[in-house]
Amino acid sequence: MASGTESWILMATGRTPTNIAVIKYWGKRDEALILPVNDSISVTLDPDHLSATTTVAVSPTFDRDRMWLNGKEIPLSGDRFQSCLREIRKLADDVEDEKKGIRIRKDDWQKLHVHIASYNNFPTAAGLASSAAGLACFVFTLAKLMNVKEDCGKLSSIARQGSGSACRSMYGGFVKWTMGKDACGSDSIAVQLASESHWNDLVIIIAVVSSKQKETSSTTGMRDSVETSPLLQHRAQTVVPGRILQMEEAIRNRDFASFARLTCADSNQFHAVCLDTSPPIFYMNDTSHRIISLVERWNRSEGTPQAAYTFDAGPNAVLIAPNRKSAGLLLQRLLFCFPPPADNELTSYVIGDKSILHEAGLQSMKDVEALPPPPVSKDKYPSQKFPGKVSYFICTRLGSGPRVLTDESLALLSPTTGLPK
Amino acid sequence: MASGTESWILMATGRTPTNIAVIKYWGKRDEALILPVNDSISVTLDPDHLSATTTVAVSPTFDRDRMWLNGKEIPLSGDRFQSCLREIRKLADDVEDEKKGIRIRKDDWQKLHVHIASYNNFPTAAGLASSAAGLACFVFTLAKLMNVKEDCGKLSSIARQGSGSACRSMYGGFVKWTMGKDACGSDSIAVQLASESHWNDLVIIIAVVSSKQKETSSTTGMRDSVETSPLLQHRAQTVVPGRILQMEEAIRNRDFASFARLTCADSNQFHAVCLDTSPPIFYMNDTSHRIISLVERWNRSEGTPQAAYTFDAGPNAVLIAPNRKSAGLLLQRLLFCFPPPADNELTSYVIGDKSILHEAGLQSMKDVEALPPPPVSKDKYPSQKFPGKVSYFICTRLGSGPRVLTDESLALLSPTTGLPK
Repeated sequence: MASGTESWILMATGRTPTNIAVIKYWGKRDEALILPVNDSISVTLDPDHLSATTTVAVSPTFDRDRMWLNGKEIPLSGDRFQSCLREIRKLADDVEDEKKGIRIRKDDWQKLHVHIASYNNFPTAAGLASSAAGLACFVFTLAKLMNVKEDCGKLSSIARQGSGSACRSMYGGFVKWTMGKDACGSDSIAVQLASESHWNDLVIIIAVVSSKQKETSSTTGMRDSVETSPLLQHRAQTVVPGRILQMEEAIRNRDFASFARLTCADSNQFHAVCLDTSPPIFYMNDTSHRIISLVERWNRSEGTPQAAYTFDAGPNAVLIAPNRKSAGLLLQRLLFCFPPPADNELTSYVIGDKSILHEAGLQSMKDVEALPPPPVSKDKYPSQKFPGKVSYFICTRLGSGPRVLTDESLALLSPTTGLPK
Repeated sequence: MASGTESWILMATGRTPTNIAVIKYWGKRDEALILPVNDSISVTLDPDHLSATTTVAVSPTFDRDRMWLNGKEIPLSGDRFQSCLREIRKLADDVEDEKKGIRIRKDDWQKLHVHIASYNNFPTAAGLASSAAGLACFVFTLAKLMNVKEDCGKLSSIARQGSGSACRSMYGGFVKWTMGKDACGSDSIAVQLASESHWNDLVIIIAVVSSKQKETSSTTGMRDSVETSPLLQHRAQTVVPGRILQMEEAIRNRDFASFARLTCADSNQFHAVCLDTSPPIFYMNDTSHRIISLVERWNRSEGTPQAAYTFDAGPNAVLIAPNRKSAGLLLQRLLFCFPPPADNELTSYVIGDKSILHEAGLQSMKDVEALPPPPVSKDKYPSQKFPGKVSYFICTRLGSGPRVLTDESLALLSPTTGLPK
């Protein structure tokens, strides 16, 4: 099977970003192949702040496929991992590592077992599309190790079978997942609309919202919506196609006003379909609603969108500002309404790209406490404060697609044992 | 103009119930005439617990039309009051009160002024369709005083022009507001589907939910939805017509399972359309969501609906149980999760038909504190307690339509001054 000693270990490590949809994916037309009922569009987030890193190792000494997530072994038996693994093995090619004297032939991959270790650089439980980044990284890194020659489009269709939105994590910048027409799903792939450098002013602030409620998984929720919501098919067939075209144009023209209007409207419509499901699904809570009101009031008072919001299957808000100045003003408003609970350090409450804090003129908690309330507009809602309702903020930006980490010190598995370091 | 002395006062007093829609009205096709985009169906609530009482007085000594609501004078200049007043005056007929020696001819009504006093036997601010009961009572009582001969259908079309859902308060029991086709609105009237005695087992429990948020008025919200929600027209044209037929059948057959499923689904879809509006409208809050979850979990665990819920343009829940036994069990579950804040008397926390408390075996706060948590089902959500999140509960039932109060001691205006007592 392989030349030289039979105790070698070959490894590859990859890093893959998360993404957040601005035109939402909600509903499958094929549960097994994960084929969606409509196209979706996402932005890829900076992997420095939100990404999955995965190391895959192969060795003739491994007696079974094994996986560790964030240091803890998890079963690999699930359909989703298995179908990705099977698809990648089919495409595997000859690998030769002259330096290590390792040679694996195409057909060997069917018999060789792998060890996989994955790590998210953000809390998995925070509901920040960890499965999208994780599955994309799983597929991307396996493909690298197994010398798969196919392009990102093909890999995206494999990642899709692991977790639908994972296919959009195969590229940086702005990504479209085309639903496709083929019953086998061959044309249900992700394509890049524009790289992150096309529109690099955008700033993203994520509010991780405290929640005690256990949430409906998106897999279950989506299935319930398809089966019971009388509005879902109308959304998928009549509303989304037009929005996809408008969103592509807004991205092409860097038209923030249109981008923001479409992003907010589509987030709200996705949650409307959730509410129209039986039993109804509530992903947003009162804090989510207050964040929306804060942005809507600001946008109305300025007459043109200053920021966009979007919410996935959970209460966390992903806010998008057109530039650093607007992001600074947005962060001021957010911190006025959602200050950290007492005795919290500002630097652990606002994480990620901390330069936005400087942009907002905020160096310490004293500066936060001194923030004036946002100007009250005609509707005369006084701005209330809700300390503790947001767990923390992550400041970030658009980011690049998957990449191989060649620095071996970043590998998550030991090169000698093939077990987590 | 009138025979005898010129200082006489003639009065009439009426009482009109509130109603709660089970298939919702949301969206007008004509703002001025208040013509809806779809039919709706409501149940009329017992006027003993939730109703408006209105006294209308006429006298040649009155120099202008005046109105008092809950003891406070309010301007009558609004379009809605004015159009109702104008329409009723057009239909006014000769009135003769031989005992008092008063004779008013048809044409006199155009010149005579009225005093109107109205009172709601429930908090106006609680968001319990006070305008529906109020406008219906305004029209009904004016019509009685002015000896209007037209039937309730005609009166309902006048009340509709004051406040859309007011037309449904013109009957007891189960009421349908047919949207009509006529551009002038002549066929947009309410009809009774069945009287309250047709299905008199139903018990209604209203949870008045505490809220600090100022809500979007239904007039504004509805207009925004018509203008911006891509889902509203689909709901109105494609979803509601079928639901109306199914709901009529469920009512005809006293089929609680279908009645409950349709009621819950339609409430959720109305709120979904609100969320699909730009800017989005949130009427329900976390407490509303928790009440829905409580009912949904119970229904699922029993395999068949035990209770229905519906929410209007606010966070209050209107819960419908098929009979007193189920209502008692529902009240137990509600009080377990939403106990009164400390030092509250049970008798001021659960008002209306207190016999439901006895049905639930609850005599005092001690009994409430001793309630066991509802059995935990497979999904293993522990039942949490949220004291203070509900302001109070009102237990009631279906009720009858408007009626004249002949007991003069119940009049809200003095028979000698024509001013509030």
